[in-house]
Amino acid sequence: MKLTLDLSLYLVLDPDLCGGDVQGMVATAVAAVAGGVTIVQLRAPKWKKRQWVSAAQALKVALDPLNIPLIINDHIDVALLVNAAGVHVGQQDIAPEMARQLIGPYKLLGLSTSNAEQLAAVPLDIVDYIGVGPVFATGTKLDASPVIGLEEFAKLMQTKTIPAVAIGGIGLGRVAALRAAGADGVAVVSAICGQADPQQAAQALRLEGADI
Amino acid sequence: MKLTLDLSLYLVLDPDLCGGDVQGMVATAVAAVAGGVTIVQLRAPKWKKRQWVSAAQALKVALDPLNIPLIINDHIDVALLVNAAGVHVGQQDIAPEMARQLIGPYKLLGLSTSNAEQLAAVPLDIVDYIGVGPVFATGTKLDASPVIGLEEFAKLMQTKTIPAVAIGGIGLGRVAALRAAGADGVAVVSAICGQADPQQAAQALRLEGADI
Repeated sequence: MKLTLDLSLYLVLDPDLCGGDVQGMVATAVAAVAGGVTIVQLRAPKWKKRQWVSAAQALKVALDPLNIPLIINDHIDVALLVNAAGVHVGQQDIAPEMARQLIGPYKLLGLSTSNAEQLAAVPLDIVDYIGVGPVFATGTKLDASPVIGLEEFAKLMQTKTIPAVAIGGIGLGRVAALRAAGADGVAVVSAICGQADPQQAAQALRLEGADI
Repeated sequence: MKLTLDLSLYLVLDPDLCGGDVQGMVATAVAAVAGGVTIVQLRAPKWKKRQWVSAAQALKVALDPLNIPLIINDHIDVALLVNAAGVHVGQQDIAPEMARQLIGPYKLLGLSTSNAEQLAAVPLDIVDYIGVGPVFATGTKLDASPVIGLEEFAKLMQTKTIPAVAIGGIGLGRVAALRAAGADGVAVVSAICGQADPQQAAQALRLEGADI
């Protein structure tokens, strides 16, 4: 069966910001989960795959007992090897239909979208959730699409028929508005990883979105 | 069953040199096969995976009727999706044991090696062939290991117990010496792709290695 999907506070672990080496990333992830992170994605576009496998294995060992799903960005081969909970693909990655073919029916599949056309094209019987963004300007994804903005994001949320997580430039002070606009959760990198205390940072983000 | 492994003339298709778009790469590969190329690898480190899948599918359609195996570099997920003949991994890619686990027993598996230590560590029951190089200086692989040189290459060939293809800076005038040193074949990029007539270029390389 698929793990329960709770997108409330979605941590995207990028090694450049989130602890650097495997040990540091695991420590960051575990602290963030203690602070309220509900799902963790490994995204390391600069890494070779042997490093991906090491990090993914270590993260899985740390996150499984906490019942937190580990999602692998882009590399389905890595996800299969470590038996990750799911994969997340972008519009230029392996197409969702093909990704589903590789991972089978029981793993989570996320898809990045950044406009109404891409939202309308999401294969709802194949994809479990969508990322929608970048809502705000971000420095942590170099090949990001144009910024959507909060107003347009709210419009997109009115058309969605699938769980959606907001992503891109999200930090404290922006969570409540995004949840109010219809986001099922928020995805962050630097708002947790770039902070002195990742656990406290996660907790503050969680609290801001809690009463929506 | 595995396809017959003939490493004699191994074309590594890099889009930067080999035709650029998918149509151009297919045309280059087909011409090269007409000139005597025996095996083709797709290697496009700068590409996103949707493009990989498109190119791999088109290459497979073109190469299958010619009975030429298509090998996918690094991305085992792409290889599985297009049912490629095999995969090729480097020392920093997914480890051979794990790659074999993903592709099953019947697909070809190649491994890059660049020194005696790496050659001695090759799992012979798992890997079908090794690449050995760079034998000479090359401009087509930016993260290449130190150059081996012909003399050291010949020493490595004396210790090998698995089919080996020489790679790195190989062109006309170097094939005969490499085959004489014990290489089962030579792998080239620019010696075919960078030439005005890829078919003729392949033919000339093939002829040089033919009487060894």
